[in-house]
Amino acid sequence: MIPEPIVRLVSLLSRLPGVGEKSAQRYALHLAFGNPEHCRHLSQVLVELHERIAPCSRCNNLAERKEDATVLCDICRDSRRDPTTLCIVAKVQDLFAIERSGAMRGHYYVLGKLLSPLDGIGPDELPLDVLGERVKQGVQEIIIATPPSVDGEATALFLARELGRLGAKVSRIASGVPHGGDLEFADQVTLGRAIDGRRNLDLP
Amino acid sequence: MIPEPIVRLVSLLSRLPGVGEKSAQRYALHLAFGNPEHCRHLSQVLVELHERIAPCSRCNNLAERKEDATVLCDICRDSRRDPTTLCIVAKVQDLFAIERSGAMRGHYYVLGKLLSPLDGIGPDELPLDVLGERVKQGVQEIIIATPPSVDGEATALFLARELGRLGAKVSRIASGVPHGGDLEFADQVTLGRAIDGRRNLDLP
Repeated sequence: MIPEPIVRLVSLLSRLPGVGEKSAQRYALHLAFGNPEHCRHLSQVLVELHERIAPCSRCNNLAERKEDATVLCDICRDSRRDPTTLCIVAKVQDLFAIERSGAMRGHYYVLGKLLSPLDGIGPDELPLDVLGERVKQGVQEIIIATPPSVDGEATALFLARELGRLGAKVSRIASGVPHGGDLEFADQVTLGRAIDGRRNLDLP
Repeated sequence: MIPEPIVRLVSLLSRLPGVGEKSAQRYALHLAFGNPEHCRHLSQVLVELHERIAPCSRCNNLAERKEDATVLCDICRDSRRDPTTLCIVAKVQDLFAIERSGAMRGHYYVLGKLLSPLDGIGPDELPLDVLGERVKQGVQEIIIATPPSVDGEATALFLARELGRLGAKVSRIASGVPHGGDLEFADQVTLGRAIDGRRNLDLP
């Protein structure tokens, strides 16, 4: 009863992360009954997306392909960035979030996965050789910014041990009560970490 | 810092209903790093969507354009449908939902809007002339299936009065405790309606 192009569109949209059939149908009807320009622009961007965008060959961040076939992201190209600091994140969105904070002036490496025995992701799947190469190329401090989850912590501990052996200084981002957060409503683990990770207040 | 095609894609995706910037970014990264075929197919469907799909000229349901330039949906084309019953719904999704129930064998009319003084939608914007024409063409019963919300009820009352004057029998879908629902957790208005709308049990 539903026209074939709509059925196809709903099926394609429902493959997006977190989109079920109901949402996909809602998007499809919006696209079908909405401004034709919106549809046309979306189609245009999508048709050339994979021709123009690829993971950065150095750090896996989003990058645009250049004429000379190199794929390097803006951060890896930027010579004003500190080449001795490398921040390891789980996914590109985390890189964006840290960039927005403005607190990181070094380079990044996007793992794209975390150690996860349940999903069959073991230590062999982590790019230790690539990261080791970066240490040899002059990275002195590695900041591990994987999320403070079970998988994220396991990955952080594993990377810290392996990369520490290569002589790099390895640090982990702080975990504790978020800015503006309420201690009363913080969970036990977060509060435990906030106490464990306390810093001396060196007042002048 | 984010490549231009991704920024554009995020902006287009965030115009979908209920999609914020975070979700749009998530979809865009999935599309950029996922299977290129997915992107290509989506682009293909979108480029021809408005060429192939249009609102049905008779009832506003989704319809495919035919070679002879008529735009009629499968339901309006179906001669086995009861032409004397017309079900008025607010949106296409509601039509789909009623069709799935299999309880409606007549035709539909999709309003696309409801009376809503706050949004500046007054009685003049409802297609009374089109609906009146349908009554003249032989529709005998009109089932008003607008949602049981304030706007939906106002629209139902208005349509019932105006279409009743033309001699059509007008009915309203029942409102009450849903199938499998728990009376304990039903709200007062729903329970009030369930009592008001009670039916005699005519046992044999």
